Amino acid sequence: MTLRRKKISVIGGGFTGATTAFLLAQKELGDVVLVDIPQAENPTKGKALDMLEASPVQGFDANVTGTSSYEDTKDSNIVIITAGIARKPGMSRDDLVQTNQKVMKSVTQEIVKYSPESTIIVLTNPVDAMTYTVFKESGFPKNRVIGQSGVLDTARFRTFIAQELNLSVKDITGFVLGGHGDDMVPLVRYSYAGGIPLETLIPKDRLDAIVDRTRKGGAEIVNLLGNGSAYYAPAASLVEMTEAILKDQRRVLPSIAYLEGEYGYEGIYLGVPTVLGANGIEQIFELELTEDEKAALQKSADSVRNVMNVLA
Amino acid sequence: MTLRRKKISVIGGGFTGATTAFLLAQKELGDVVLVDIPQAENPTKGKALDMLEASPVQGFDANVTGTSSYEDTKDSNIVIITAGIARKPGMSRDDLVQTNQKVMKSVTQEIVKYSPESTIIVLTNPVDAMTYTVFKESGFPKNRVIGQSGVLDTARFRTFIAQELNLSVKDITGFVLGGHGDDMVPLVRYSYAGGIPLETLIPKDRLDAIVDRTRKGGAEIVNLLGNGSAYYAPAASLVEMTEAILKDQRRVLPSIAYLEGEYGYEGIYLGVPTVLGANGIEQIFELELTEDEKAALQKSADSVRNVMNVLA
Amino acid sequence: MTLRRKKISVIGGGFTGATTAFLLAQKELGDVVLVDIPQAENPTKGKALDMLEASPVQGFDANVTGTSSYEDTKDSNIVIITAGIARKPGMSRDDLVQTNQKVMKSVTQEIVKYSPESTIIVLTNPVDAMTYTVFKESGFPKNRVIGQSGVLDTARFRTFIAQELNLSVKDITGFVLGGHGDDMVPLVRYSYAGGIPLETLIPKDRLDAIVDRTRKGGAEIVNLLGNGSAYYAPAASLVEMTEAILKDQRRVLPSIAYLEGEYGYEGIYLGVPTVLGANGIEQIFELELTEDEKAALQKSADSVRNVMNVLA
Amino acid sequence: MTLRRKKISVIGGGFTGATTAFLLAQKELGDVVLVDIPQAENPTKGKALDMLEASPVQGFDANVTGTSSYEDTKDSNIVIITAGIARKPGMSRDDLVQTNQKVMKSVTQEIVKYSPESTIIVLTNPVDAMTYTVFKESGFPKNRVIGQSGVLDTARFRTFIAQELNLSVKDITGFVLGGHGDDMVPLVRYSYAGGIPLETLIPKDRLDAIVDRTRKGGAEIVNLLGNGSAYYAPAASLVEMTEAILKDQRRVLPSIAYLEGEYGYEGIYLGVPTVLGANGIEQIFELELTEDEKAALQKSADSVRNVMNVLA
Repeated sequence: MTLRRKKISVIGGGFTGATTAFLLAQKELGDVVLVDIPQAENPTKGKALDMLEASPVQGFDANVTGTSSYEDTKDSNIVIITAGIARKPGMSRDDLVQTNQKVMKSVTQEIVKYSPESTIIVLTNPVDAMTYTVFKESGFPKNRVIGQSGVLDTARFRTFIAQELNLSVKDITGFVLGGHGDDMVPLVRYSYAGGIPLETLIPKDRLDAIVDRTRKGGAEIVNLLGNGSAYYAPAASLVEMTEAILKDQRRVLPSIAYLEGEYGYEGIYLGVPTVLGANGIEQIFELELTEDEKAALQKSADSVRNVMNVLA
Repeated sequence: MTLRRKKISVIGGGFTGATTAFLLAQKELGDVVLVDIPQAENPTKGKALDMLEASPVQGFDANVTGTSSYEDTKDSNIVIITAGIARKPGMSRDDLVQTNQKVMKSVTQEIVKYSPESTIIVLTNPVDAMTYTVFKESGFPKNRVIGQSGVLDTARFRTFIAQELNLSVKDITGFVLGGHGDDMVPLVRYSYAGGIPLETLIPKDRLDAIVDRTRKGGAEIVNLLGNGSAYYAPAASLVEMTEAILKDQRRVLPSIAYLEGEYGYEGIYLGVPTVLGANGIEQIFELELTEDEKAALQKSADSVRNVMNVLA
Repeated sequence: MTLRRKKISVIGGGFTGATTAFLLAQKELGDVVLVDIPQAENPTKGKALDMLEASPVQGFDANVTGTSSYEDTKDSNIVIITAGIARKPGMSRDDLVQTNQKVMKSVTQEIVKYSPESTIIVLTNPVDAMTYTVFKESGFPKNRVIGQSGVLDTARFRTFIAQELNLSVKDITGFVLGGHGDDMVPLVRYSYAGGIPLETLIPKDRLDAIVDRTRKGGAEIVNLLGNGSAYYAPAASLVEMTEAILKDQRRVLPSIAYLEGEYGYEGIYLGVPTVLGANGIEQIFELELTEDEKAALQKSADSVRNVMNVLA
Repeated sequence: MTLRRKKISVIGGGFTGATTAFLLAQKELGDVVLVDIPQAENPTKGKALDMLEASPVQGFDANVTGTSSYEDTKDSNIVIITAGIARKPGMSRDDLVQTNQKVMKSVTQEIVKYSPESTIIVLTNPVDAMTYTVFKESGFPKNRVIGQSGVLDTARFRTFIAQELNLSVKDITGFVLGGHGDDMVPLVRYSYAGGIPLETLIPKDRLDAIVDRTRKGGAEIVNLLGNGSAYYAPAASLVEMTEAILKDQRRVLPSIAYLEGEYGYEGIYLGVPTVLGANGIEQIFELELTEDEKAALQKSADSVRNVMNVLA
């Protein structure tokens, strides 16, 4: 019954990985190891040290380490994967998939070697197929390999709704199924402001526009930044999932989960409402869907299958 | 007796400015406006939107706006200046000073125009001279123009001491006078672990090495990052000073303050222990110094004067 | 544009009042004045001092004052009324109503005298009629006189549901209309776990039992305690409403609001979904009700009218 | 590498015990079990349920259980003892000591039975002797049996100093050795405001008066309350020590520790500066004392010995 601090490793020291590390440390969820490739080791060490130097002022006790050595991740409770490349102009989708698949495989081997009891959360795109890759490569039980997309998608949806209604973000909830971004299946009838169905508060065309904006939420940020992509909201999403698991909170959060019959799908990672607790994904909620929703989910699943077919 | 939210504007949308904006919003200290030059307007809008999209997940209600228009800063309670350039290879120090002086002047004119009642906190380097420039240009009373360096310097010192002693950062305090970085005058005899003087806990040579590392703390991060400089700890430092003022906490924090006789100096901005409350710098503590400390402070002041002489 | 701290006065220094004061101070929402009658002045001062002595350890800067003098409440932004007596064995309901009505009138006169711009939140039972009394006595606009019951009732409901489903309380929402306790009109169809309607997750008889337990939630605590009544959850509820107003959050929270035609009622204080922001109650949401819900709300309103008829 | 929640049991369901339970739950430090004697079981259950019902509003996930069965404390990481009686008018000190000694023995047997790996923190007075009793009865190693007094004493001191100087409590530190209350040995020369020695900021007579007020801080609250004693600040103090251990923070906090030669004492529990981490008391700092301080500590130790002599 030792009181060893929890340990969380974040693979990928870019903006999302670094911001995730900082938000984890801020909450004193455990010690954090930020891992990047050898060439990026020094910047990663620099970021980690800078975070640490913020700790006396922000008042948190958490060690943050930057490294390129997976040995430093030994015995992590949670490993978060943000590594991989973003699609560049002129790059085919298949190239993206295969490049990131290689990254996932190599990262997963290190995780299995050093943290065989850990739970893995994947952010790298295309996230459904990448989570599947990590699942297969790790040999971990399905509850311990989880993809992130729904927390972020609903966070964007909630932000836009809060702005539309001029209400606190705290009281807006959203609900999505299926894949990330374009393939997202929003269940607006399960989305509320203070418990009041949004459909009764916002005209259909405005709601449709907000759903559409949510789908393209990642691209909106990419376009504004000009160079790079979102990292604050993705990092916050990863941290919420991590906290739910580390504190065994049994939060009801959307996750990309491995389906074995749920919603009629088999052998595929897809976004569904889950319970996150000490054992990772502890439960999947199956909702009755309308015909339209079923069709949208099918389209989303087809899209994931298409990417999976590209996997080597 | 309106309950209007507080408003904080952050000038300069680089990493430090953006991180400052995010940490301010997280604490629900008020609505935040992040301002950059027109060419950087879209990235600034992108960062602000990304932060906002983190708010439902992190659970804060604060508007964050990215803009290049100072009109959006109207009636800010606090304005934080992070704008300006960093010294580039081959650039003379005088060029740096004069370039940033121009930035300070132009920024200050906008602040005076739109937020004449605000308190200004300056981070831009060389910070003593830049704070002086803002003071002169603004015509604000001295208590409402403040420079940041000591909170950051002591944060670094506290981090290194906590590591050295393997103790919580929460219980380490540090104390500095004078300028930022190389010119820092550490008062180790006023620095403690849980109230115990550090000199009794750490051998002199180790303590000297830590002081030296602290002096060069900014350069250590620059060297590790390879490209760019620290932003987590600088942002956290700005936020602590801002919170002290906005919540009228009367915190005892080191600030770069305008001296009118204190410590024997006149008409110069220099790092001293201050009380930060609703009126900005509400008090300056004058400590008795040893001859060595006096000499070090004099050296630091000379260095500031040298920079001030370069001001146009 | 002064940065004066917010000020909150809590009338009634019993357990609920004291706990409310502590939770407000913990959140650094402002300085807190805890007021009780002259005979209870010393204990009130003792509680306030004890809270203050917790502040260095809990890390909050907020003054907490115990007093029996309303002068100390001068210029409060928010005044919370917890004063009044609880029904004792053998006491008729009419006696309770008339005694507390006198307390409300006298307290309100002091509030009007010293804090004419404040917003008042009432907890004293029977809360609908007592809020009405304060409204009439104060002459304040209706948006600045608010009763608390729904935040507490839904908090209890959410707790029981979280236990039933073994899920995080963070993801359970509840919804009530009408009066407090027995007269509560739960809108279970607007209550969710992670956005999923509870009716699809919990068998009807269990849900009915939980609704019933919620109605009697106050009595359950009274019976367990043997002596006295609940104060942690009531205090937390008052603090959430206060925070929403002080920080202008525009939270969607159930409040006891003065109706002028909403839901078909006129001139009565009744529990409805509201938006709480800087102006107090800034909006009332009108939902379409089923016939059953309308009947239950009518019963609740009749019950409030019955109490109002007892008012002197 | 299970992620089981931490578990903290609080023995004694009075105001201090209950407040401690609530503050622990608020911080999500683990699940909390509040234990009282069978006759007080229902009120204890009532308090626990009331706290739980505050959790959806305050936003914490922690189970809080009220019980009179020690079985429910099984496998606690930390056990906090607040049980015992307070000295009543006419009761001799020896009666108090022997009564509480019996309580400690019986409580300790249950702790040893159900949580043999736990760390115990004792609050019950006279706390030095009671901690010794628990140490002897438990057979636990000395690092896992700790008494609380210094965190509370310095909290009071810090509060009074903050008031005196009108400064934030966050920047005031205090330092005590020896016993609780009257026997407290304040080391004012190790007490600071923002690192500045208090002796340079406050005239000696004022400082003496504040030290004296601190010594009598418990009695001041007792006298004000008229009935009962302080519980907010004592609870906050227990929670800070518990957090330091559960999160392995290695905080520098004053504890009542078992001395084996430190400061020249052997076989006695006395207040000294310690490091609190995963292993309980991980280190004791020995400071050089002046002759006056040595004499005061001797007096304090004698006083503890006198009480120990009364132990059965």
